[in-house]
Amino acid sequence: MDQFTQPERPAFARWLGGTNDVTHMFLSAGNGPDMINMAGGLPDPSVYPVAELAAIARDAVAKNPRDALNYSPIEGLPALRDAIAARFSDENLTLTRDNVLITTAGLQGLDLLGKVLIDEGGLIAAHSPTYLGAIDAWRARLPAYRPFNPESNAFDAVAALKGAQFAYTVPNFSNPTGRLIDLERRKALVEAAHETGTWLVEDDPYGALYYDGDPLPRLLSLSGAMRPGDTPYSGPVVYMGTLSKELAPGLRIGWLVAAPDLIAALTMAKQGSDMCSSGLTQRVALDAFAARLPERILPNILDLYKTRRDALCAALAEHLAPWFDFEKPVGGMFVWAVARDPSFDTDKLLKAALAEGVCVTPSSVFDVEGRNRRAIRINFTLNSAERLGEGARRLALAAARVAAA
Amino acid sequence: MDQFTQPERPAFARWLGGTNDVTHMFLSAGNGPDMINMAGGLPDPSVYPVAELAAIARDAVAKNPRDALNYSPIEGLPALRDAIAARFSDENLTLTRDNVLITTAGLQGLDLLGKVLIDEGGLIAAHSPTYLGAIDAWRARLPAYRPFNPESNAFDAVAALKGAQFAYTVPNFSNPTGRLIDLERRKALVEAAHETGTWLVEDDPYGALYYDGDPLPRLLSLSGAMRPGDTPYSGPVVYMGTLSKELAPGLRIGWLVAAPDLIAALTMAKQGSDMCSSGLTQRVALDAFAARLPERILPNILDLYKTRRDALCAALAEHLAPWFDFEKPVGGMFVWAVARDPSFDTDKLLKAALAEGVCVTPSSVFDVEGRNRRAIRINFTLNSAERLGEGARRLALAAARVAAA
Repeated sequence: MDQFTQPERPAFARWLGGTNDVTHMFLSAGNGPDMINMAGGLPDPSVYPVAELAAIARDAVAKNPRDALNYSPIEGLPALRDAIAARFSDENLTLTRDNVLITTAGLQGLDLLGKVLIDEGGLIAAHSPTYLGAIDAWRARLPAYRPFNPESNAFDAVAALKGAQFAYTVPNFSNPTGRLIDLERRKALVEAAHETGTWLVEDDPYGALYYDGDPLPRLLSLSGAMRPGDTPYSGPVVYMGTLSKELAPGLRIGWLVAAPDLIAALTMAKQGSDMCSSGLTQRVALDAFAARLPERILPNILDLYKTRRDALCAALAEHLAPWFDFEKPVGGMFVWAVARDPSFDTDKLLKAALAEGVCVTPSSVFDVEGRNRRAIRINFTLNSAERLGEGARRLALAAARVAAA
Repeated sequence: MDQFTQPERPAFARWLGGTNDVTHMFLSAGNGPDMINMAGGLPDPSVYPVAELAAIARDAVAKNPRDALNYSPIEGLPALRDAIAARFSDENLTLTRDNVLITTAGLQGLDLLGKVLIDEGGLIAAHSPTYLGAIDAWRARLPAYRPFNPESNAFDAVAALKGAQFAYTVPNFSNPTGRLIDLERRKALVEAAHETGTWLVEDDPYGALYYDGDPLPRLLSLSGAMRPGDTPYSGPVVYMGTLSKELAPGLRIGWLVAAPDLIAALTMAKQGSDMCSSGLTQRVALDAFAARLPERILPNILDLYKTRRDALCAALAEHLAPWFDFEKPVGGMFVWAVARDPSFDTDKLLKAALAEGVCVTPSSVFDVEGRNRRAIRINFTLNSAERLGEGARRLALAAARVAAA
């Protein structure tokens, strides 16, 4: 055979034809030396409790080598599952270890839900726009989507959920829009899940990041209150959490809380995904919980991110108001800004913004069909107030250029 | 609604109907206080370099917090990818970082290959019996299998590979049979992959565990030698490695080495599987490589496991010979024993063995259709020589009971 002639390779699976080029562009951007990256959902590394985590990591190996260095059970270390069960139980909600699966961070939880619940064409009910990572996680299962909008006056929760394999929601500071689902709509969603049987997936990475007002109850908690004697919990809410925003994403520790029969099926799926999550990072998570590390660093995180949210909103009001509307979010990591002109194209804005040295996320990546090109998601947690101001200024230069084209 | 009446739930995905009950039984067994577990492929925890890994884990966080605690790039830490590329390059094979994807241990590599290469009904060429974890990883993609047997005199490598999306092989101490694919058959497989274009997946978790003789060349290396000017490597071999057997499975660090275009597709798949592997465990792996930790602990591992292999084989010859034939493996972690009587049922043997306090793996779990019930896989790395002897004695009691039934 000629040295550099290759025979034709087998085709890639069909879902790989459906990926979004803008996703590639924005994932590979944001790393230049003067690029202001407001695209991702990244914590500020200054909030990591480095010295304490270093000591915990050492002790995890030195004092508990069998937990840290062996294969863990597929479901996760029993003591960590117990800690998660205790953390989310309340007076009306009794969770046990059988309700908990430890995952390789939140994203794996989404992947496992797709594996367990979606055959080709299977129906997912989801906000539109919805979280990019969820769309990515389910893409290889070739699902169908039915959008719902809990903010609409005409919102009918039963109609939204009925017949779907599961409904997906981020009630706290919905990714990407940053909005909070109010108590009334939370109750409606939970009641509809109990009525229809549809699994209701509550993805809650930002639940600790309330900057104003008291946290609203979790859907999981509302579901428990509908059946106080249901022990262990067997209801329709599937709660997803992670240490990525509260401690450190590099640990890749998340959890799914659900009815035991669903946890058993998810465990079969995890067995074929990565066998088990790292014993080392699970043991670090367990010891960090025991030391109340997430609770202890939270006040500092909230102070820092609240200041930055306010700085970004002030800068956007100053620089971006001619082209974009936005609301100040109550919590989370993002401001969602919608172009006043419906024909404004934020995929084009991204290109112009990268040329100006600023990166944001265009709305097309949060739309399963890539059609929504009117909005941008702007992160405020990674950069200083000063950099956020400069980012807003650069974004305005880019917006003016796109509007004039 | 009545308190404990549930509406019907959405059906689970179809592949969950195809799981093997024996798999459940043997995964949940082996944990009693006096149970001798010879089922899994577990290292002996005494080989873990606990003190050094504890110091490395502390320093990974304290000295490189941005690597250890942030999100890593999807493909893995660049320095770790470079280290893997350097480790597997040779005089005829030039690998770069673009040839390497870091995975959440070996099993995720298998899952990602399925995601990228298998649509429903897609064809996989694989040894039969084959590795249980691979069958698990691909189950959710609903593949078709075409078995091949490289030990057969009539083995035709081109016929084995042609038309398949990929061919799967464990050339060093094939899991479960423990056999080594000889040099001639290795060359035939690699040449067939170059000729047909079919990806040839070389899963190599046991490549360092040769107890007798010199290691045979990797398929990856043989492929490189067919095109010495191919830089970076773009050939059909997909090499999979892991730190699970050479250092510690709790780190969950593995790697895929392949042509850059396949690595790019696998990276898209990983983005939707767990976003990235843990920065902490990647940094530990990188620092462990830099300290030559796997190389330094290997002589001790080889001494220990060789002694245990010999002890198990002696005990099997003494106790199990009336019912089973086996060969002493050159390396790896397992002895494969085949019943002399073709009607002997090793699923039944497993039940009898558990009652006697010993656990082995029945051949049915290594067969995609669960039909092969004539053999067992026996691990020799986890237990002492004395326990292995006692395990063989218990196994003989169980075999006598099954044979008499």
